[in-house]
Amino acid sequence: MFVYADNAATTSVSKAALDAMMPYLTENYGNPSSLYAFGQKASEALQEARETVARCINCEPREIIFTSGGSEADNQAIVSAAKLGARKGKKHLISTQFEHHAVLHTLSKLEKEGFEVTLLDPHSDGVIRVEDVAAAIRPDTALVTIMFANNEIGTVQPIAEIGALCREKGIPFHTDAVQAAGHMPIDVKAMNIDMLSMSGHKFHAPKGVGVLYARRGIVLTNIIEGGAQERGKRAGTENVAGIVALAAALKESCDHMEENTARIIPMRDKLFAELSKIPHSKINGSLEHHVPGTVNMCFEGIEGESLLLLLDDAGICASSGSACTSGSLDPSHVLLSIGLPHEVAHGSLRLSIGEYNTMEQIDHIVETVPKVVAYLRSMSPVWDELQKGERPHLI
Amino acid sequence: MFVYADNAATTSVSKAALDAMMPYLTENYGNPSSLYAFGQKASEALQEARETVARCINCEPREIIFTSGGSEADNQAIVSAAKLGARKGKKHLISTQFEHHAVLHTLSKLEKEGFEVTLLDPHSDGVIRVEDVAAAIRPDTALVTIMFANNEIGTVQPIAEIGALCREKGIPFHTDAVQAAGHMPIDVKAMNIDMLSMSGHKFHAPKGVGVLYARRGIVLTNIIEGGAQERGKRAGTENVAGIVALAAALKESCDHMEENTARIIPMRDKLFAELSKIPHSKINGSLEHHVPGTVNMCFEGIEGESLLLLLDDAGICASSGSACTSGSLDPSHVLLSIGLPHEVAHGSLRLSIGEYNTMEQIDHIVETVPKVVAYLRSMSPVWDELQKGERPHLI
Repeated sequence: MFVYADNAATTSVSKAALDAMMPYLTENYGNPSSLYAFGQKASEALQEARETVARCINCEPREIIFTSGGSEADNQAIVSAAKLGARKGKKHLISTQFEHHAVLHTLSKLEKEGFEVTLLDPHSDGVIRVEDVAAAIRPDTALVTIMFANNEIGTVQPIAEIGALCREKGIPFHTDAVQAAGHMPIDVKAMNIDMLSMSGHKFHAPKGVGVLYARRGIVLTNIIEGGAQERGKRAGTENVAGIVALAAALKESCDHMEENTARIIPMRDKLFAELSKIPHSKINGSLEHHVPGTVNMCFEGIEGESLLLLLDDAGICASSGSACTSGSLDPSHVLLSIGLPHEVAHGSLRLSIGEYNTMEQIDHIVETVPKVVAYLRSMSPVWDELQKGERPHLI
Repeated sequence: MFVYADNAATTSVSKAALDAMMPYLTENYGNPSSLYAFGQKASEALQEARETVARCINCEPREIIFTSGGSEADNQAIVSAAKLGARKGKKHLISTQFEHHAVLHTLSKLEKEGFEVTLLDPHSDGVIRVEDVAAAIRPDTALVTIMFANNEIGTVQPIAEIGALCREKGIPFHTDAVQAAGHMPIDVKAMNIDMLSMSGHKFHAPKGVGVLYARRGIVLTNIIEGGAQERGKRAGTENVAGIVALAAALKESCDHMEENTARIIPMRDKLFAELSKIPHSKINGSLEHHVPGTVNMCFEGIEGESLLLLLDDAGICASSGSACTSGSLDPSHVLLSIGLPHEVAHGSLRLSIGEYNTMEQIDHIVETVPKVVAYLRSMSPVWDELQKGERPHLI
């Protein structure tokens, strides 16, 4: 049995997205910037996609900038707010310790350029406290950027409350909603979000296309200079097929959000319930504030990477954290940020379930993981020491 | 009859490109950064694409960075060389007046940051002189960036000579080869090119994917920060389908370059020959140093935009210059750079022919353009004045 349980890393392209994009990969290949009718067909498709995306998050179409993905959107949002702040003498940026590297590395770059960065602690439940944001705000704060849902542990942040706080203080608020868009309701107006990033391939559009929402009035700095595409804010011939697919996929995800969630939650809960029976295991992140599909657990005495390889042999695609950092030997910065010791963080498993998964697949995971964990522990010198009481159990 | 004669703006996706990408838009949707075999399929496809592209321009696979397009590649190349230069106290950049805006606007941004930019004059034939490059080089020159072929007038620059000069002087040399890649032989080693940009959709790959070649030893600055994709030089989940399509399209274009050129040249030459018969018309750019497919002409006494709209009515897709600047009322900066007066530059027409065009389509253009030019002149007060001798003919 093949079980794709890594939907937080990427998703399959939906039929709706593929059908929507195919005409733009075949007969409708015009350049949207061209004057003739054939080019204008592409331009109209872009406009329609922009309107669709805007409706999904309750903003104006002109507030949508299409990018090459979530990372580019994150970079542009943060750099824009920083430059805007710097012009007013504001060079303090607030974020969290467990953001995606697209955010953290952009902040590091700005730090080298003279900005000061405060990274908030997500507490052991993986949820940022609004009080902590409020306490970190200074007169020279130029931006608060806090992710909507964490990509590794799936915890959802109090975005509306943070948005209200930032609006009250007059500070631009950006959220990396890459893991939330298409999976949870987003209303940028009600939530007082000034900027928001999305990545198409996390909700069944193809890879290589994303969205930056920027509220009217937010002055954007270009990451890519050149032609006048995207109201002069993002140069380069538009990825028409990808953009059309993104809009179709987002619309489908938003239209079916309730039923998808209703399908996913029982599968996720079964994973939590069954895998928690493994001794010395731990669920990471609050279950109260959680995206529908993500399960993150640690199993003491094993290496996450070995677990993944044996699960792969059993046909199960899973991850130990973010795909973007796989290959790295360091434990996840997300798990460390919620207070896990290195040894425990190393034994992590992320399973991320989507609407295309089935309960039979969940059963396969639930049967396989305990066997694999037991097998790995049987060979683990660390587990041996834990069993003999030569080192203390940490979970 | 529908005639797509704007292949310099964008091209149709070839069957080879579409066939190559389809598996990655359907069953092979894994994230290339994932550890499991399903993700590694995508990773292997990326590696194969990298090898294919490297073979096409004679470089090493590790010297290829996939980007979201030509503009991003241009931005990254120029910013990288500038930052690298600045660290050595070198803050002088050399380019030309008729580059694409992805180059010119990036240079302007750097100018505001304290760099000094010399823009060379392409002379009236649209060809940069190596002597002019040599004369502009200073001890503090950090970069020479000169396009391979101009996007509006199709003139080809003496890239190998400029490359040899820059290598001799130890100055990094970048070329925007967006209009040349897939259409002309490129050998980055033989031509001493240090960095080179390509855009997939100019050679029958989809929009939204490009290439930055950067010679080993060139230190790249990230435009997009985040995950460790593309050897840490370009963050964001890779556009796997787009990249695979780009490689397939480039390979096909390079494999069939001779026969494509042999097909295109007679069509282009017929356009030049027949349209030159229109009185007070002018061919823009040297025909001696020219990409195969591009024809750029001016017709006195008319507005290029009106010409395009009437050609559109006749089923002909053409442009007055770069699609990236359409909608702008300013005359083309390229045509001004080769010395055309404003009035003449306004009456420009670019026809760009590809291997999918037919001689019947060329006949349709050749029959239509003179009629449309005559019609527009019959209504043009400027033409009326020219005829009455109330203003002098400029061409």
